[in-house]
Amino acid sequence: MAKKLHTLQDLLVHQLKDIYYAEKQLQRALGKMAKSATDETLREAFEKHRDETATHVERLEEAFGELGLTPRAVKCPAMDGLLKEANELLTETEGEPAVMDAALIASAQRVEHYEIAAYGCIRTYATQLGLTRIADLADETIAEEGQADKTLTQIAESAVNAAAIGDSEATV
Amino acid sequence: MAKKLHTLQDLLVHQLKDIYYAEKQLQRALGKMAKSATDETLREAFEKHRDETATHVERLEEAFGELGLTPRAVKCPAMDGLLKEANELLTETEGEPAVMDAALIASAQRVEHYEIAAYGCIRTYATQLGLTRIADLADETIAEEGQADKTLTQIAESAVNAAAIGDSEATV
Repeated sequence: MAKKLHTLQDLLVHQLKDIYYAEKQLQRALGKMAKSATDETLREAFEKHRDETATHVERLEEAFGELGLTPRAVKCPAMDGLLKEANELLTETEGEPAVMDAALIASAQRVEHYEIAAYGCIRTYATQLGLTRIADLADETIAEEGQADKTLTQIAESAVNAAAIGDSEATV
Repeated sequence: MAKKLHTLQDLLVHQLKDIYYAEKQLQRALGKMAKSATDETLREAFEKHRDETATHVERLEEAFGELGLTPRAVKCPAMDGLLKEANELLTETEGEPAVMDAALIASAQRVEHYEIAAYGCIRTYATQLGLTRIADLADETIAEEGQADKTLTQIAESAVNAAAIGDSEATV
């Protein structure tokens, strides 16, 4: 158990450590997701977001710097659970490329939403504490996470799920 | 490990089982969150959302019925992780009412976003499979989850976080 959090700034630092851990785990996971994706547009989307995630990690390091702190991660059970679920779904859809692609999107969108919620809190706290630069950094990342989520929806609604229905008909 | 998923409909059923488990866990957690909240508006928001969650469970049961299935849950590691994180944060902020309220909001918003992503997938799959009633049920729940998330942001931006800053100043 981590040390007690007494102030809103303590909570902000905790949230930064939590999402720092999450982004680092995600960076690795997105590489795996890109390799597993069979749809080319989907693979490219994962690769692009993996690169963006590297920038998100750098922004977090800048945010720690703003507070005069060395970047540190704290274990984030939620991201661990999200990625465990993503892995399980990958195993369960093995051998069905289109269904696997749809499952990858489902898992990735859950992760995006986790991050949007996390950075939303960071932005709110930073604003209220007058830490404008940290709020701005969170804002930039939120915009990219939101765009990544939209891109995944578009891919799901166009190519991937239609192909998964095709798979479905083939096995009926 | 659950049985293999071969089709988009298999994936839809899996997602319904996953969120059925998640909603049931959440129903219990929201009761605890309401009890822990010190801000009255926040407590009321949690109680309202706990009641809405009961309706979400009923909608899922109707969705299973649409597919001729008995409602069944499948363990959802992501929701388990989210609630584990929420519990840890509650322990770490114990004795600091305003910071604890802010932490409760942070945890609840992550959960809301998880659910929005999950129901978003269900809606997309159901639409593509021509299962209009299931898509509509998902849509109704998404609207309520979105509203719950907005309400929490409003509470965070007004009373709660300001009070947490107050706590912060008191301990400096």
